Amino acid sequence: MSPSVFQDIVPVGELSSFQAMKELASFPMVNPVFVCVISYTATCEIPQITFAGANPLLLRFTSPADAEFLYYGHCKCIDKVPVTPDGKPTPAIITRAALRLSGIPFFVVEAGSKIKPSIPHISFNLPPGNNIRSGIGLNIGDVKKAYEYGVILGSQLARTNSTVIIGESIPGGTTTALGILTALGIDAKNKTSSSMPQNPHDLKNQIVLEGMKNANISFGGLQGDPLKAVSILGDPMVPSVAGIVNGILRLTSSNAHVILAGGTQMASVLAVLKSMDCPLERICIGTTAYVAEDRSSNLAKLVKTISADIRIYKSDPHLAYSSYPGLQAFARGYVKEGVGAGGASIAAMLKSGGQINGDILLREVEQEYYALSSK
Amino acid sequence: MSPSVFQDIVPVGELSSFQAMKELASFPMVNPVFVCVISYTATCEIPQITFAGANPLLLRFTSPADAEFLYYGHCKCIDKVPVTPDGKPTPAIITRAALRLSGIPFFVVEAGSKIKPSIPHISFNLPPGNNIRSGIGLNIGDVKKAYEYGVILGSQLARTNSTVIIGESIPGGTTTALGILTALGIDAKNKTSSSMPQNPHDLKNQIVLEGMKNANISFGGLQGDPLKAVSILGDPMVPSVAGIVNGILRLTSSNAHVILAGGTQMASVLAVLKSMDCPLERICIGTTAYVAEDRSSNLAKLVKTISADIRIYKSDPHLAYSSYPGLQAFARGYVKEGVGAGGASIAAMLKSGGQINGDILLREVEQEYYALSSK
Repeated sequence: MSPSVFQDIVPVGELSSFQAMKELASFPMVNPVFVCVISYTATCEIPQITFAGANPLLLRFTSPADAEFLYYGHCKCIDKVPVTPDGKPTPAIITRAALRLSGIPFFVVEAGSKIKPSIPHISFNLPPGNNIRSGIGLNIGDVKKAYEYGVILGSQLARTNSTVIIGESIPGGTTTALGILTALGIDAKNKTSSSMPQNPHDLKNQIVLEGMKNANISFGGLQGDPLKAVSILGDPMVPSVAGIVNGILRLTSSNAHVILAGGTQMASVLAVLKSMDCPLERICIGTTAYVAEDRSSNLAKLVKTISADIRIYKSDPHLAYSSYPGLQAFARGYVKEGVGAGGASIAAMLKSGGQINGDILLREVEQEYYALSSK
Repeated sequence: MSPSVFQDIVPVGELSSFQAMKELASFPMVNPVFVCVISYTATCEIPQITFAGANPLLLRFTSPADAEFLYYGHCKCIDKVPVTPDGKPTPAIITRAALRLSGIPFFVVEAGSKIKPSIPHISFNLPPGNNIRSGIGLNIGDVKKAYEYGVILGSQLARTNSTVIIGESIPGGTTTALGILTALGIDAKNKTSSSMPQNPHDLKNQIVLEGMKNANISFGGLQGDPLKAVSILGDPMVPSVAGIVNGILRLTSSNAHVILAGGTQMASVLAVLKSMDCPLERICIGTTAYVAEDRSSNLAKLVKTISADIRIYKSDPHLAYSSYPGLQAFARGYVKEGVGAGGASIAAMLKSGGQINGDILLREVEQEYYALSSK
């Protein structure tokens, strides 16, 4: 298939975008599956750190509600879908539209969510993460368990599925991403993304510094021990996803590919994998144009620092052209990404051979949004 | 492929076994997946009702330990693998051998197990079932939830997998099967199987009669209301599996086939599906020769009463020829089936195009058994 049919997928920061698109077009889409890992870190309770919930008390419902929305088109654990304090909807609305249009099946992995979603879900039986200010994000035993369970799941998925698209939902996750990257010696200061248009970099840096001080570690001090880095400054999502990826890529009998569906949080997963010497082939990052083009963060530079070989692709679901202000807001720096929205959009476009594009996606997203607001 | 290559698979009670084998050989095995539903009913606590545990206190560990064994080759929630009181091993040993030989991936569904397995598992978030003597096997709300979650899972699995093999592990499950069948008007008296060589038919009949009396229902009284029949005399496994099957067979965009991997418990699932007008095409029962040839039960007659169109296939993993008495016991009426052993064996033989047969399976089972006993 000519890569040119994918008009709304663009490689980020590549000299040869034709070569990059050719590589993406070779991802085997005969049997893809989408996996969404939902999780929690008490780091999100720090005031002004996230927009991923209408108010602080609702933050614990954001991830399970996202997962429920993917299945039902509405939520069960809360009345409405997760929204920002001023009413902008969850990116799960894009993910659901992309999965429905393309018929891609999906599984939800519950890895330390505070509330269990009211849907069948794969349980990793993990506790929620702590506030990383303390210097203990997650017990090292639980980090190892998350990773091991991930490996088991990944090796099962890779036997049947040609490409596994992995998204996440964890409020506060860009701050723990900053923590992990810093402990692994990657300069991520002012480069991680945010659900808010005013990226609270100073606050994030300060939280990570405090955590490092409390754990008595320095920049890059845990370069050779990625699971410990996650334990001190991370969250339960990162080792779970790292395990799934490792389980997929290491299964020699499989040619399964991986799309890490997310922004700078997935960069921290990559950093963990790199530090573990995981073979980083057959893997790329797929995200929304809203994160990739965000001026308050720098996904491309972050990923380049981790590995020069990892490509990033951005998809544009044309929300800027929506007639709904709540959806337009994505293009104005709110929400931006999450629940694997960008990667799921890319996978839908690839699987359909370009039949699904930004316009078609926008129409479906608007229908979902309309159905919600008329409920 | 010529059906004759499958030397250790035999259709049960068919006039034209060539036609039956031709049908089985047409099951699409390009992308199969095995699903094991683990569950609990307090009915198993009635003395003399089951052998599925070394002693009554260990019964709650049987299903999760089976699930752990499938992944690890040893158990985590108990020291040893589940055994009968006199030390005969769980049929999971056959299932694991078949899955490993064939590379078929698998998922464990935890549907009302009393203990959660220490593996990644799909949670249906259900309570364990009650002793059906009381006349309330499981709250009707939970029966409906089990069924609905099953439909969701089935419709996801059917998108990617060509054939779904569904097994179960629930001690006491043949008694609840008898209960459901009786409430649905199918004469199952003295026809359900047992993990014991002396099938306790009188006790089972008495338990079901007591339950019916307490719920004030009569034979066939719930013919038109299968979920209520499950609620009164059933367990959480049956509606979960019925939901998964319905989710698979009703997905019009899929051609996925189903192998119900089990004995008379799967007959109760079929009865529920039949009563729901589920289209019973692309489905068969796959079991062990040990259940199919059991003289103390009658799977073939049971299934014929439910539907004349459902075929049963039995596989022979040649345990009679084992040098280990614990494995030989399967051929002498102990354990017989469970954890989808028979159906998983059939799937492994089909997927390998006959390369895997009873001899090869026996060798792998013996290796698993040896590894266990030398631990």
